[in-house]
Amino acid sequence: MESWPPGASGPTEAGRRLRGLRGADLAASASLLSGAGAEAGCSAPAVAAVLPAGGSGERMGVPTPKQFCPILERPLISYTLQALERVSWIKDIVVAVTGENMEAMKCIIQRYQHKGISLVESGVTRHRSIFNGLKALAEDQPNCRLSKPEVVIIHDAVRPFVEEDVLLKVVTAAKEHGAAGAIRPLVSTVISPSVDGCLDHSLERARHRASEMPQAFLFDVIYEAYQQCSDYDLEFGTECLHLALKYCHIKAKLIEGSPDLWKVTYKRDLYAAESIIKERISQQICVVMDTKEDEEHVGHRLEEMLKNELNHVKVTSGRDLQQIILEQCYNFVCVNVMTSDFEETQKLLNMLEESNLSILYPVVVISVQFLDYESVPFGQKMENLMQIREFAKEVKKRNILLYGLLVYYPQDEQKLQESLRQGATIIAALIKERNSGLIGQLLVA
Amino acid sequence: MESWPPGASGPTEAGRRLRGLRGADLAASASLLSGAGAEAGCSAPAVAAVLPAGGSGERMGVPTPKQFCPILERPLISYTLQALERVSWIKDIVVAVTGENMEAMKCIIQRYQHKGISLVESGVTRHRSIFNGLKALAEDQPNCRLSKPEVVIIHDAVRPFVEEDVLLKVVTAAKEHGAAGAIRPLVSTVISPSVDGCLDHSLERARHRASEMPQAFLFDVIYEAYQQCSDYDLEFGTECLHLALKYCHIKAKLIEGSPDLWKVTYKRDLYAAESIIKERISQQICVVMDTKEDEEHVGHRLEEMLKNELNHVKVTSGRDLQQIILEQCYNFVCVNVMTSDFEETQKLLNMLEESNLSILYPVVVISVQFLDYESVPFGQKMENLMQIREFAKEVKKRNILLYGLLVYYPQDEQKLQESLRQGATIIAALIKERNSGLIGQLLVA
Repeated sequence: MESWPPGASGPTEAGRRLRGLRGADLAASASLLSGAGAEAGCSAPAVAAVLPAGGSGERMGVPTPKQFCPILERPLISYTLQALERVSWIKDIVVAVTGENMEAMKCIIQRYQHKGISLVESGVTRHRSIFNGLKALAEDQPNCRLSKPEVVIIHDAVRPFVEEDVLLKVVTAAKEHGAAGAIRPLVSTVISPSVDGCLDHSLERARHRASEMPQAFLFDVIYEAYQQCSDYDLEFGTECLHLALKYCHIKAKLIEGSPDLWKVTYKRDLYAAESIIKERISQQICVVMDTKEDEEHVGHRLEEMLKNELNHVKVTSGRDLQQIILEQCYNFVCVNVMTSDFEETQKLLNMLEESNLSILYPVVVISVQFLDYESVPFGQKMENLMQIREFAKEVKKRNILLYGLLVYYPQDEQKLQESLRQGATIIAALIKERNSGLIGQLLVA
Repeated sequence: MESWPPGASGPTEAGRRLRGLRGADLAASASLLSGAGAEAGCSAPAVAAVLPAGGSGERMGVPTPKQFCPILERPLISYTLQALERVSWIKDIVVAVTGENMEAMKCIIQRYQHKGISLVESGVTRHRSIFNGLKALAEDQPNCRLSKPEVVIIHDAVRPFVEEDVLLKVVTAAKEHGAAGAIRPLVSTVISPSVDGCLDHSLERARHRASEMPQAFLFDVIYEAYQQCSDYDLEFGTECLHLALKYCHIKAKLIEGSPDLWKVTYKRDLYAAESIIKERISQQICVVMDTKEDEEHVGHRLEEMLKNELNHVKVTSGRDLQQIILEQCYNFVCVNVMTSDFEETQKLLNMLEESNLSILYPVVVISVQFLDYESVPFGQKMENLMQIREFAKEVKKRNILLYGLLVYYPQDEQKLQESLRQGATIIAALIKERNSGLIGQLLVA
């Protein structure tokens, strides 16, 4: 076994040093894996991933297999692919899908611009699907486009929240031990029933763990195990770590994973996944304004109010919009100050459309206007309203959710505070729910 | 053991007949349990329930113990109490809470009008809390207000979706076998680690089950088990069925439960629970109208559109409003036809406030007005708008979420269809999200 990462006295030492990586350490190790380390004389393992995605999802109680169920209108498996493909040191991702779903999967890859994905046909069981994925990676297959990796990750299509951190840990441990897998504490006690449906015995919860994904293996180890294993294993087995133990005598290293590794199994898990994704993309709001000098403007006061009221959210000023779009902010409050119509909003929408930001997630844009009931004729505002409905319909096609917000702008300071606070509440509500049924509405604060 | 339910040749036969009850069978058996059967000569067991609720919720990653986390602003434990107290044949519910949370728990019981609940102080572990609950039910305790049940249900405060069906099954099986508990298939393979953190062996998934709640016991069995069990059991044990086996040699009957029995453990489970609850209370919409004769009115066409567009929802006409409120419909669309202001809505709001319907769940009221842009001056409509904001603030205090909806009413038939369809979409969105940040808004279709 080669020495990896560099500076370690041996594989065991290497493993010990890499356990529990965080932050800067993680970045450094990831760059080693991505090849930067190779120049320093070490050998980063070539890593590929196999995703069995041939399941029928009968536990979900819905006709669509769970990996294809939509979350914010995008299939679950696309989130999992996104989680894997953003890890620079994973070179190839092989997805095993049924012949029936092959075309749908190709469309998903194209529509959401996934890169480095190869498709193989799944088998009738999970193990057979994984085996098909491994065969595609093995060099001994004819017409193989893929190159054999040193380490292969096996993950589930229905675990979209896997982080680079745990992927790095299982790969590092697999390189050292031959096999590694993520585990979690048991939530329920596990029991063994007798044949008559009564309790035979219960297992001590503290001495057992749930085996989760991702897992990683030296490719030769797991491929050998699959080549040797029995039809019974392929039909009824559920655990890759078990195959490595039984057929290659490799005792897998177990890695404590985070709660995020859970598997989307039931309908309630889809609800949970949607809420988590909505929460994650609602952490940052960018406030765009066409007035830069006039710091006294009420638009700035709205920005201040957002900062005060939404203290779990990062409120950014939209001075360098291109940069903020690059940083993947999915929420924009566009304050129209100098113009009474939607000129500023239109500029922002054009920029967003060009950026492709909304390919993966719906982007919320809230176009804010200030309204002094006593001095502005309402008829004119209503024309704006009709205009925003048309805009909203148009940009919805590109996954942008546009809402209008009229903030009442009274002379009385206390009333103004109240309007701004309600404006912040409405903005928070729209961003949190991301409800496409309410696009084009003009809300009043 | 007595023969229960009646007509069975013996306890085993009785158990066999009761397994797999559904619908009418369930209603019949429940009425037996509630005592109606006693007149026919059988003996329904006296049933109580114990809920350990002393946990700290450290797995949730939030400071509030999970049983007190709010879902739609109501603590999780209140949903669980509601699920148990609607079962007529459960006589007493004993909840074990920490001294610290005793006052909060009393407030919850008062505010949500829970009946038949007794509080005891929890112990430092789950088993000690359950034991304290059992002691309160045992007749040998001084000053005991409660009577000793024949069968005791043990349930978790954080499993709010328990159905009468499974409660009846575990109670019936407990009466026959002495102990019974709900089980579920394992979602993940269970493994046993070695001391060095590597895989020792994995368990065959098909031969094991997750032990869930509810469980039920003959009171004398489980009380005896707790009285005899060791301090080690009380400190580190997790499984009541295990205690009944170890100390009373009772092999619990295992009952396959539904996925609904899952335990709210992580933050994602709170998200899932909220979505499930929102979905459950959004299954019915009542359309209230002040015109009864004029079937041609556009209000009726909106009702038709709701029926066509929201085909998973039951759309009811509000002819017998008192009855519909009694049947626990939580969504109202109030069409103001004869009056241009909110007279009809105001009547509905008064009725809802008197009914106490909104004590347990937020009730959505959408006040609909029709608007012909070409003939009605908008200023007058705006005054209505201001009015609804004040109404909404006022009724929010009583957990009623009021929104306004202006439906554009053009002469052109196709455009009218489009308006009505968009109205239905907006109504669906408001009911689904139940977002209090948007109350008092006047949406336009």
